[in-house]
Amino acid sequence: MCPSAGSEKTTRGWVIPIGGAEEKANNPEILQRFCDLCGGSDARILVIPTASELEDTGPLYVELFESMGARSVFIPVDEREDCFKDEIQAKLKRSTGIFITGGNQLRLSTILGGTPVAQLIRHLNADGVHVAGTSAGAAIISEHMIAGGRSGPTPLEDGVTMAPGLGLTNKIIIDQHFRQRDRIGRLLTALSYNPFASGIGIDEDTAAFIGPDRVFEVVGSGAVTVVDPSELRHSSMHDARHRDAITLIGLKLHILASGARYDTNTRTAYSE
Amino acid sequence: MCPSAGSEKTTRGWVIPIGGAEEKANNPEILQRFCDLCGGSDARILVIPTASELEDTGPLYVELFESMGARSVFIPVDEREDCFKDEIQAKLKRSTGIFITGGNQLRLSTILGGTPVAQLIRHLNADGVHVAGTSAGAAIISEHMIAGGRSGPTPLEDGVTMAPGLGLTNKIIIDQHFRQRDRIGRLLTALSYNPFASGIGIDEDTAAFIGPDRVFEVVGSGAVTVVDPSELRHSSMHDARHRDAITLIGLKLHILASGARYDTNTRTAYSE
Repeated sequence: MCPSAGSEKTTRGWVIPIGGAEEKANNPEILQRFCDLCGGSDARILVIPTASELEDTGPLYVELFESMGARSVFIPVDEREDCFKDEIQAKLKRSTGIFITGGNQLRLSTILGGTPVAQLIRHLNADGVHVAGTSAGAAIISEHMIAGGRSGPTPLEDGVTMAPGLGLTNKIIIDQHFRQRDRIGRLLTALSYNPFASGIGIDEDTAAFIGPDRVFEVVGSGAVTVVDPSELRHSSMHDARHRDAITLIGLKLHILASGARYDTNTRTAYSE
Repeated sequence: MCPSAGSEKTTRGWVIPIGGAEEKANNPEILQRFCDLCGGSDARILVIPTASELEDTGPLYVELFESMGARSVFIPVDEREDCFKDEIQAKLKRSTGIFITGGNQLRLSTILGGTPVAQLIRHLNADGVHVAGTSAGAAIISEHMIAGGRSGPTPLEDGVTMAPGLGLTNKIIIDQHFRQRDRIGRLLTALSYNPFASGIGIDEDTAAFIGPDRVFEVVGSGAVTVVDPSELRHSSMHDARHRDAITLIGLKLHILASGARYDTNTRTAYSE
């Protein structure tokens, strides 16, 4: 799906993919900034722990956001039928921010995909509710999601598995744990099929805060790697045999650390 | 990408995925109906033979459409740089219909993807120009494209390769040569990741004529298989190991032959 149109009267909410393993104890800069954006002490943050199979993931984030002064609840969504319950949808509608935890992004797409909850998240974001996701929660944000793939620097035929995501943005394809898990090859593979979007690789403890104007700012201790294929001259993906390395000619690359910005509409990077 | 918004004054063009191997000599019903829709003797049909590496694919379709009374040209687009040429875009803007030939859909996505030609096809379709595609040309039509996969009836982990398509519709995922190449397993795999769209498997010499109201009618000698996952209760894709068979509970299935219709908005099938 693509981003919801929203009403003309409201400003879209922010969209915040986080690269996983964000600092939670000492100076939790990313989570604090998300909490402030959602209203600080007036924030009502709804946590979706569906990607995780650990029972304490939801309560952990609720406790963190409450320690920052926000009100927070989590919704226990483990099966598709949960997404059709009125009380779950009512809780979503009362939130000023939605936080999607890490785990397995295929749990998010198989359990939320095509349900009223997925639709509501798109509508609420279009109407001003901020949506952050870490790790698997970051992967699900875009229209075309990286569901899995191979580590290493070289793009390979069969190097990535793509699947439909939530569709809060269709300007970028997101990967996470980027430097820590050596994922530039699979991000390049994702772009090699159809180079219409910018590739965004987010390191751990790092986030891209994407504003309503679709410009993002980097926050955190690592970097965001941007691969812009808008001037790509050639991709060999259509000729590739099984596990071949892929030729890609004419990519642009930006490495953006804290404070740097990138305009996903014009594909322009700014150092501050 | 998702369908272009278009202006409010014009009716959207039709979108016509064809399952490949459509009849060309005796009673070419599908091509004739497309030609009539584009204006009959006033039709100006632009052929995009990029998916094919055979030099006579473009001229063959031009000759066919001209034998039906239309004017027709093909655009030789073999590299991404061709998609930035003014004369190519000018030819597109003069067309009443666009026909995308078969071949390899990854040639379409890697060569057209993210270029002004891809953008223009979306805008023209939103403004009333009809777009048909056969085989690879049908696959590229949807937002989420099946780029390849395994034959057979059972959905399997690693059973399909997905990639971003042109995005003329985001309500369906299309597969073609459906019965002839035994592709229901890979269509089900495509839906198992994120069951938000209906799966549409189109037999050879068969087409889904999707109107501006997003209802399609089946035309041709085979059938269109519709898999509707809107009431899916469970997909095991998130738990699957390499090459596992996937559990999918609660799918709806319709087999639609010539004259039957399907509403991709409401997911309702009609026998005539």
